Amino acid sequence: MPENSSPTSRTRVIREAERAVYDRTVAYQILDQGLVCHVGFVADGQPFVIPTSYGRKKDDLYIHGSAASRMLRTLDQGVPVCITVTLLDGLVLARSIFNHSMNYRSVVVLGTAVAVTDPQEKLQALRILSEHILSGRWDEVRQPNERELKATLVMRLPIEEFSAKVRQGPPVDDADDYAFPTWAGVIPLEMVAGEPISDPKLDRKRATPEYAKRYARRP
Amino acid sequence: MPENSSPTSRTRVIREAERAVYDRTVAYQILDQGLVCHVGFVADGQPFVIPTSYGRKKDDLYIHGSAASRMLRTLDQGVPVCITVTLLDGLVLARSIFNHSMNYRSVVVLGTAVAVTDPQEKLQALRILSEHILSGRWDEVRQPNERELKATLVMRLPIEEFSAKVRQGPPVDDADDYAFPTWAGVIPLEMVAGEPISDPKLDRKRATPEYAKRYARRP
Repeated sequence: MPENSSPTSRTRVIREAERAVYDRTVAYQILDQGLVCHVGFVADGQPFVIPTSYGRKKDDLYIHGSAASRMLRTLDQGVPVCITVTLLDGLVLARSIFNHSMNYRSVVVLGTAVAVTDPQEKLQALRILSEHILSGRWDEVRQPNERELKATLVMRLPIEEFSAKVRQGPPVDDADDYAFPTWAGVIPLEMVAGEPISDPKLDRKRATPEYAKRYARRP
Repeated sequence: MPENSSPTSRTRVIREAERAVYDRTVAYQILDQGLVCHVGFVADGQPFVIPTSYGRKKDDLYIHGSAASRMLRTLDQGVPVCITVTLLDGLVLARSIFNHSMNYRSVVVLGTAVAVTDPQEKLQALRILSEHILSGRWDEVRQPNERELKATLVMRLPIEEFSAKVRQGPPVDDADDYAFPTWAGVIPLEMVAGEPISDPKLDRKRATPEYAKRYARRP
């Protein structure tokens, strides 16, 4: 894969082109920080946007779910798909309402997903999905059995046609507005983990692991 | 509008149907807490999923942006659209990898958006979009002028065909797995505001307002 993506007419960022990023490293940092993607597909002429978890390994994105899922069954027909990951970093409060904005980082990947059918590759993909959410957890839990593997559909989307968009930093106001008498700045936003809640059915002697206590999602 | 949405074949939740919510009150709580929606539309046969801010007033969703935006220009042609709002509430760690999940609340709205062209309604819609993000801010900033209003396209999507999906609570494991020797529970996740960062160009004598210091996004 080339390090950068040459934008196609479909991934070229038109509006606020200065926010566009076609660099694979930046896009992968965004993908690696996110927890949920939004999958866009068309069924009977109607677009659907469905949130789901995902994982990345090298230049592939993986999503998974029930083999009965409408989303996955539709994707398995080889239809065009769009997977978008968005990280919201803050509210940008300008002096004019027009220049209010948000700080964010987002990646849009277009393409066609393929089902992962090879048993070894499928198991590996499920591990990638698990590691993406919480590294190390896979090795501490009951592995998938035959029945569960059969009930699960895993789709792989090659990250070929993509673009990212990034807005960071303070508000940008029109020159005439800087004297306007109001506060201006950024309210940072971050996805933060709270105190872990043990399953009520858990043996009370079992301690909460450090990785649950210290869970954080950072670039 | 009826208080509940009768699910159509397009909005009926098929997988994990026990998580489905067609109650308008629940859906509106989710919509009112979210900051970013993901807009799905089709252009040249390719679905696109684009993050953007939104606002709700009664049974309408509003989105806005540059009049040159590909997304808004496409929607303005009267094509089918899907707007999805997702709130991520936690990671659900089960004893089996198969039963790992996420706690979340999401709403999917299908329909056709219409441009808001009446000047008064357009101004009102922009105010709704602003109030959704930060109540009261609109009255403290420089209002939009003629040029800015012309450069902005506002689209309204009636909330008619919708569904919500909610998963909350502890992990649910297979009976045989409860004895498996690992921690299980929930790591709560929340979008949290940090310390406001004043614009470097701001008059240093201007105090940071309480609404910026205490910004929180709660149900």
